[in-house]
Amino acid sequence: MPFEKVKGTADFYPEDKEAMNQIYQKLRDVARKYSFQEVESPAFETLPLLTAKSGEEIKTQIFTLEKRGKEELGLRFDLTVPQTRMFIAKQKELSKPIKWFSFSRMWRYEQPQKGRMREFYQFNIELFGSNKPEADAEVISILIDCLLALGLTEKDFFIKINNKDLLEGLLLDFIPKNKIEEVTRLIDKSSKISEEEFETALKQLDIKEIDRVKEIIKQKGAPDEVLPYVENMSKNEKSQKGFEKLKAVVELLDKKFIKVDLSTARGLVYYTGTVFECFDIDERFRAIAGGGRYDNMIQLFGGEKTPATGFGLGYSVLSLVLDERGLLPKIDLGPDYYVAIVSDKVRKQAMEIVRKLRKNKKVEYDLTGRNLTNQLQYASSINAKQTIIVGSKDLEKNQITLRDMKSGEEKKVQISEL
Amino acid sequence: MPFEKVKGTADFYPEDKEAMNQIYQKLRDVARKYSFQEVESPAFETLPLLTAKSGEEIKTQIFTLEKRGKEELGLRFDLTVPQTRMFIAKQKELSKPIKWFSFSRMWRYEQPQKGRMREFYQFNIELFGSNKPEADAEVISILIDCLLALGLTEKDFFIKINNKDLLEGLLLDFIPKNKIEEVTRLIDKSSKISEEEFETALKQLDIKEIDRVKEIIKQKGAPDEVLPYVENMSKNEKSQKGFEKLKAVVELLDKKFIKVDLSTARGLVYYTGTVFECFDIDERFRAIAGGGRYDNMIQLFGGEKTPATGFGLGYSVLSLVLDERGLLPKIDLGPDYYVAIVSDKVRKQAMEIVRKLRKNKKVEYDLTGRNLTNQLQYASSINAKQTIIVGSKDLEKNQITLRDMKSGEEKKVQISEL
Repeated sequence: MPFEKVKGTADFYPEDKEAMNQIYQKLRDVARKYSFQEVESPAFETLPLLTAKSGEEIKTQIFTLEKRGKEELGLRFDLTVPQTRMFIAKQKELSKPIKWFSFSRMWRYEQPQKGRMREFYQFNIELFGSNKPEADAEVISILIDCLLALGLTEKDFFIKINNKDLLEGLLLDFIPKNKIEEVTRLIDKSSKISEEEFETALKQLDIKEIDRVKEIIKQKGAPDEVLPYVENMSKNEKSQKGFEKLKAVVELLDKKFIKVDLSTARGLVYYTGTVFECFDIDERFRAIAGGGRYDNMIQLFGGEKTPATGFGLGYSVLSLVLDERGLLPKIDLGPDYYVAIVSDKVRKQAMEIVRKLRKNKKVEYDLTGRNLTNQLQYASSINAKQTIIVGSKDLEKNQITLRDMKSGEEKKVQISEL
Repeated sequence: MPFEKVKGTADFYPEDKEAMNQIYQKLRDVARKYSFQEVESPAFETLPLLTAKSGEEIKTQIFTLEKRGKEELGLRFDLTVPQTRMFIAKQKELSKPIKWFSFSRMWRYEQPQKGRMREFYQFNIELFGSNKPEADAEVISILIDCLLALGLTEKDFFIKINNKDLLEGLLLDFIPKNKIEEVTRLIDKSSKISEEEFETALKQLDIKEIDRVKEIIKQKGAPDEVLPYVENMSKNEKSQKGFEKLKAVVELLDKKFIKVDLSTARGLVYYTGTVFECFDIDERFRAIAGGGRYDNMIQLFGGEKTPATGFGLGYSVLSLVLDERGLLPKIDLGPDYYVAIVSDKVRKQAMEIVRKLRKNKKVEYDLTGRNLTNQLQYASSINAKQTIIVGSKDLEKNQITLRDMKSGEEKKVQISEL
């Protein structure tokens, strides 16, 4: 039995890799227009960093390495944590705000599902150094522009936006402070479990006013409809502050892409303030992207207190959505020319032609010593556009035979004209 | 104390990442002209695969993961092993030969040194399905063209080439078969240890004719000088076969880049036949690239016997060499425009300008609510080319003030002309 790849990982064969490259290139183009700069961090980090501020659930999902030296190491599960470490290391010398993007992979030990792998790629955006709604709007706008650049429209996706201060403030009216984190985590899961399971879990936390929780999280829809109602619900300082921020961010955005959704809470506990998730319009897939503010992380990691916001966009779900919409890049990897060699006598001259053409064309030739028929078959199998047949009779007249592989037409061409 | 990165890993800040991107892009362009296709494999593989055919030394260098499920996993230490697995998985349906490249990272637990990290990036080339000298010449030619594309010349680098059958055949004249692997590994290390250490190690292996070993491995130099002498040394079938292959490969290459070097043996034991290493001309750094044939691996991994050849080019040493030659890309990440906002009143119009310009320009604007002076300072610190100053008086005339950040010159420009 041949060896197999590890469960939850994917091999990218040439068509897959080229599709990923083209999508990455489009995302990168948008990021650069927004003046985000690309960075990359190592695959593994120390466990104390990885487990510092990301909650209990993620600890069970980290791939840890067997100990070699003194340090305990684990594979990164997101790009926010390592890039925050990178930011802190140069915090003093960098001109704030800092706008970073990356497209890279990370790892989580989870049950593999459609759109969820143990090794997965994300396009990632971080913006360090602004607590303004403009910063949140900037990262949400770039997310929208990225998806538009890939051919998606407001008929294909939307963004759910919320504010954790608003949500927590509303809950604090009737839920004790020490239960807020757990209730918030439950709310984050509420769309993935049944109403009954949700209620049971709330009861287990000894939450009495279940209907009030349900009333809060059912607030979802167009900003102009939902915001006025939510404004009336907000009574304490925390929820009012959160509401104002949410409203300010929404005002800066193109509202046709936006739904306010008070059930959006994000799984990772490091988020503060603005949180958002992007879905395909029918919510048939997992979230395409998710993010928000994490204003406390830098200080908790030993840096100077700095507000921050950003998101991660998963390549796996993105490509499922693009595929369903017929928007995956069309890939043609065939060479411009295949140079066929009639006999070994002309190999040297053929290689000379190959060498010259390769200065600006994609060229393949026979590396296996096949006869002409088999060479032409191979040229066709790799989708070569044209074949140059090099034979000794032609060479006497300094010419070759050029065959168009689609029409099958052949003509003699002077070598100097190639 | 803030958290630190793991020993032997590197952070790529924007300038570093952009330099890597530009180099990667040049390598990719060359690879595509040669009709190689890009692939990517997972970061980790099963340990049985990783340890199947790569020798004892590498086993001590694999970063293994703590066991979660049934499988034992380790981080890949090269790209050849995982890509061979990928090839085998689709061996039946793929048109051979298969030409794959990648630019990606891998991991080895070694003592970090200049040009050697525990997490490192390689440009990698594999050619499956041809045992011809043309295939070896193809991969060595692409290596040469890659380095030329980066601005290096024959004054900067050269390639040592050898054939393992030739070397082993010559050794078999006076060394028993069961010691060949260990002696070959010693020869591979010979340039990194003293002559005395080399002799002592040979004695420990009970090798009597140390001078004969030394006579073999001192054969190095221009092909036309070394090959005739080596031809006379080759007496048994194995060394003669190896010699003929070596000569055939060399004949297909541009000899000004090539030295025949009988001490080149490659550390990984999976190599068969042609082996080669690329160095800076003075051999002041570690090898830039190394590779060769591995005709047995596919069969040993459970596939149908298929010849294969390829190489890996380390980004770390490559960038040291390019840096020393002044050939690292010059990086300018500054935006085309910085849009400065005189007062909050004009923010909405300013953002409209930002949005329009971002369709094809790289644009930054104020996300922090700074005053104009601080905005201009920030624009200068991020190396913006021009600043667009948006104020209410100008807006009344549908214009903005455009400042060239180099000359400091300012002029009024109609918004419609931007």
